Amino acid sequence: MKDLIKDDLKLVHSFMISHIKSEVPLIPLLSKYLINSGGKRIRPALTILFSKLFGYNYGTRHISLSACIELIHMASLLHDDVVDESILRRGRKTVNKIWGNKASVLVGDYIFTKAFQIMVDDQDLKVLQNLSSASKSLAQGEVMQLSLKNNLDIDAGKYFKVIEDKTAKLFSSSAVVAGIISKCDEKIISKLDKFGKNIGIAFQLLDDALDYECSKNNIGKNIGDDFKEGKITLPVLLALKKASSSERNFWKRVIEDLDQEKNDFKKAQSILLKHNCVIETKNIAKEYAKKAEDVLKEFPNNIYRDALVEYTKFVFTRSN
Amino acid sequence: MKDLIKDDLKLVHSFMISHIKSEVPLIPLLSKYLINSGGKRIRPALTILFSKLFGYNYGTRHISLSACIELIHMASLLHDDVVDESILRRGRKTVNKIWGNKASVLVGDYIFTKAFQIMVDDQDLKVLQNLSSASKSLAQGEVMQLSLKNNLDIDAGKYFKVIEDKTAKLFSSSAVVAGIISKCDEKIISKLDKFGKNIGIAFQLLDDALDYECSKNNIGKNIGDDFKEGKITLPVLLALKKASSSERNFWKRVIEDLDQEKNDFKKAQSILLKHNCVIETKNIAKEYAKKAEDVLKEFPNNIYRDALVEYTKFVFTRSN
Repeated sequence: MKDLIKDDLKLVHSFMISHIKSEVPLIPLLSKYLINSGGKRIRPALTILFSKLFGYNYGTRHISLSACIELIHMASLLHDDVVDESILRRGRKTVNKIWGNKASVLVGDYIFTKAFQIMVDDQDLKVLQNLSSASKSLAQGEVMQLSLKNNLDIDAGKYFKVIEDKTAKLFSSSAVVAGIISKCDEKIISKLDKFGKNIGIAFQLLDDALDYECSKNNIGKNIGDDFKEGKITLPVLLALKKASSSERNFWKRVIEDLDQEKNDFKKAQSILLKHNCVIETKNIAKEYAKKAEDVLKEFPNNIYRDALVEYTKFVFTRSN
Repeated sequence: MKDLIKDDLKLVHSFMISHIKSEVPLIPLLSKYLINSGGKRIRPALTILFSKLFGYNYGTRHISLSACIELIHMASLLHDDVVDESILRRGRKTVNKIWGNKASVLVGDYIFTKAFQIMVDDQDLKVLQNLSSASKSLAQGEVMQLSLKNNLDIDAGKYFKVIEDKTAKLFSSSAVVAGIISKCDEKIISKLDKFGKNIGIAFQLLDDALDYECSKNNIGKNIGDDFKEGKITLPVLLALKKASSSERNFWKRVIEDLDQEKNDFKKAQSILLKHNCVIETKNIAKEYAKKAEDVLKEFPNNIYRDALVEYTKFVFTRSN
């Protein structure tokens, strides 16, 4: 699966490195640290695979637009880490931990404006409309998530709206942009959008499940970050539904009042375990991934479609 | 002067208010606070006046693009205030002081992506190229300013590069965009760019001078913010040139080491007064404003040009 697009992903990497050059040394220094931290490059992989699935061979737009989408994602990670005060990301110290919040905010802005320039240089209004709308949703989802923190009254509908905006829309763009540059018709574009939305939701659900999972494989980021911040994710929402009155008081204290003691995260994990909330979240992730896989069946059957099926499975089986 | 574009500025205001609507209440709440805080609206005024000077009457692009530029400016103010930890802006508490840094970072992102959507909806690649490039320069200038803080070894060249990127480029866009929508030729566009650059530099120089000026008129923002942060601006660079060895030690302690005592700001002001550094900075601002005014002389002579001449004078005579 990875061999199929290895060379293209290398081109995406080089494209990103060459486009964050700047006469201000702090910009490439910090951006390269971030780019070289790895990451799963799922969004570029989707754009590249769908481009090839639909026979795109008119140039290198799949590379530059992949890089653009990955840079938007990176800029949002930088601002996310400022907001979350995270210490680890992808197994390494976060940028804000090393260079401070100010650098993270401003270099994040730089990376975003650079992504914006890349898409303007691509000169396709359809692509621009899709990516500007996805960027707006991403920002809106982040604000919504912030304003729902520490509030147990939110329902699953609002939670799903947050993850659709902050995660699924950019996944959709990764697929849709490939369709646009491959000159697919509106019917296909709308299927690509549906695929992206479902795989994106699956991806975020698993992320939220893994944040409560105790596993040695899970070394890419700190677990317990959502808990520490009082973020309401699906595992907690499921636990609240089944909570005894003492458990409800517990969630109220640790999530709403953010009054957390040393062993509270372990206690949260054991409550989630008792009510099967992490497993249930993973199962729901699997359902969304299944929906994404079903969309794939409607596309031409070739090696790129096979690779996309594998990717879709990876999204709900990965352990970090 | 203000009567001439009063109605258009009202339209810009309404356009901004209607475009920051969102289903997430925190977004309009915080954005409206910012929009209603006033501000001088110099950038929209320039776009409107130049559009009218060159006979633009094809629609309302001067309104939407003015609003777009003002929103980019506002988003950057939000991130600026996070970085500077400012308490006052335009005579009111800053957003980060009331709602916290996290909201400022994320709503700033939202406002920026919204501005980006407005310009994509305008569907003119020339406008998009200009504004995406100006946005990138703005972000780059902010990072450069951050990385030059607390370092007395910087020269005036670097300082001018910072203010050109972080301030002058968006002023240029305000003028250039008016030229593009009014279908001006390249020669005029390049003059508009030159005008914007010069008035932008004048504007920032005066801003940096006012931050050291003790005046009751200057109530819009805290004075002494640059000093407190250890930002190197032209008044300090001029003072360093003329510094005695004890003065150099003073600047080293307060700016480089950021080791400031209670009366240090007053002492800084008196050193600047002794060497005429604030007045000299203002005079240099006046020179740049003069260059901008000279460009205006090459444009058609009408009431809008007269208003622009007045604006140019205002930029170096304003007291806040």
